[in-house]
Amino acid sequence: MSETHHHSGAKTPEQITADVLASFDGCTDDRLRELMQALVRHLHGFVSEVKLTPEEWTRAIQTLTRTGHITDEHRQEFVLWSDSLGASMLVDAIENTLPDGATESTVLGPFYVPGSPLRVYGANIAQEGGAGVPARVQGRVLDTSGAPIAGAELDVWQNGEDQLYAVQRPEAPEDHLRGRFFTREDGTYAFVAVRPVPYPIPYDGPVGDMLERTGRHPWRPAHIHMIIRADGYRALTTHIFDQASEYLDSDAVFAVKPSLMREFIAHGADDPATPEGITTDWVSVHNDLVLAPAAAAGNGSQPA
Amino acid sequence: MSETHHHSGAKTPEQITADVLASFDGCTDDRLRELMQALVRHLHGFVSEVKLTPEEWTRAIQTLTRTGHITDEHRQEFVLWSDSLGASMLVDAIENTLPDGATESTVLGPFYVPGSPLRVYGANIAQEGGAGVPARVQGRVLDTSGAPIAGAELDVWQNGEDQLYAVQRPEAPEDHLRGRFFTREDGTYAFVAVRPVPYPIPYDGPVGDMLERTGRHPWRPAHIHMIIRADGYRALTTHIFDQASEYLDSDAVFAVKPSLMREFIAHGADDPATPEGITTDWVSVHNDLVLAPAAAAGNGSQPA
Repeated sequence: MSETHHHSGAKTPEQITADVLASFDGCTDDRLRELMQALVRHLHGFVSEVKLTPEEWTRAIQTLTRTGHITDEHRQEFVLWSDSLGASMLVDAIENTLPDGATESTVLGPFYVPGSPLRVYGANIAQEGGAGVPARVQGRVLDTSGAPIAGAELDVWQNGEDQLYAVQRPEAPEDHLRGRFFTREDGTYAFVAVRPVPYPIPYDGPVGDMLERTGRHPWRPAHIHMIIRADGYRALTTHIFDQASEYLDSDAVFAVKPSLMREFIAHGADDPATPEGITTDWVSVHNDLVLAPAAAAGNGSQPA
Repeated sequence: MSETHHHSGAKTPEQITADVLASFDGCTDDRLRELMQALVRHLHGFVSEVKLTPEEWTRAIQTLTRTGHITDEHRQEFVLWSDSLGASMLVDAIENTLPDGATESTVLGPFYVPGSPLRVYGANIAQEGGAGVPARVQGRVLDTSGAPIAGAELDVWQNGEDQLYAVQRPEAPEDHLRGRFFTREDGTYAFVAVRPVPYPIPYDGPVGDMLERTGRHPWRPAHIHMIIRADGYRALTTHIFDQASEYLDSDAVFAVKPSLMREFIAHGADDPATPEGITTDWVSVHNDLVLAPAAAAGNGSQPA
């Protein structure tokens, strides 16, 4: 063959990877260079290992495009990919090297809405009837020495018996099943919620298609969300999991930690401890929360 | 501390990765299971290696969201990420294990528009004056034994001296600087184009931000695109690179292969070989194209 057709200049996959890595050598931001070069090594490692075909590449581009177009101010499908592929919990595990005794964190999830109303000790967060079985949630916020933290803020939100968060229902009262509470001088808090039920993550998009095609289910075990903030302590984003729930062993977003599981205890409507305004059978759950000091984090950084 | 706060159940990063991998064990599509488990291993490998922080995770989600929202029917920012991180050329290198002597492939790029007009041997693809220095492009389409292939289709497109493809200019004639040609009985083809010039990939989006922040430039060396199709042969998507161009050593999308570089030879307007209708100085480039048989591909698959 003529010289114009020789292949001596053709690059191997390894040479292509080396060229792309070298293109970032001039990046003067050390952390960004580290991130980009590691991203390239792992991206190329994936493509090379599976010998990704042009057809599979095209489908990946289509899936990412669809993910981008389904994402808006009410839905974050990229976060759902991160959650459903366990990347969110991995970031959480790397970040949260906690001192002994501190309560563990778990995913924020896509349904948190800032600006919940401030409510008084013991108030009911259900703003509609029929939201579910009433659940009294109470406990203390403590430091790692066991001393109470007064004035800590608990920002709580949960789904109702219909599996939905208020933010998913345009017709629901905006402040249904959410609220903020401050601990009292002795570190105690209390509110009335409903017993949470399992629910599926949104499965009508690309993540749902992936779950279905790979034989995975979209369900999360029953839980109540909370963020606890107090001056001088690391903010804590966590759940209370109902230890009697289904799906504790197969949470679609891998967010269960055994230390966060709690028993919801049944009570009759005639129990003398029945909270004011409750006329039906109800449940109670006790949940102490232990905050790490702001400076004691494993790698020194502090979540918002 | 009370039992409810113990950490004995906390999962290590390695355990989280193992759990996510196991969640795909039930996938009955063997290739999909392989792809998803490799994706999880490499995604988690990246996050673990760089110890991705929650703040960096948030910025990654924002960048992906912005990429999704800038992508539409005229712009494909996900393809631009793949190109600028070398993933497109890596897929090409893995796919295209060619027999000796076959012309190498390179990226399709984001500016290909199907349905170019069929033009006669020797026709000019410039539909506007001032598009650039006229360039006669000619050669033969051959098989790997050197025998000519008659009736092979060349689908060509390129940018003008203004750095733009017609598809990037709403006011340009739709068929400017593009066309389809068939080879003659002796395998020859010829057309008049313009000498291509270097141009930047679109840099007003997330990919452009990445290039700027990492100290990379967005430029591609001068080239003419072509796809060659013939019955019984593998379709070939390739470029002619101007060997005198800038950026051959730092193509923003890593698509240069030395075997695709050609000399553009200068001619005066008084050269007896000047193509019909050309009244200025011009250039010529000779470019034979060798197609691999349809069944001879390295891994047996066949690009569209």
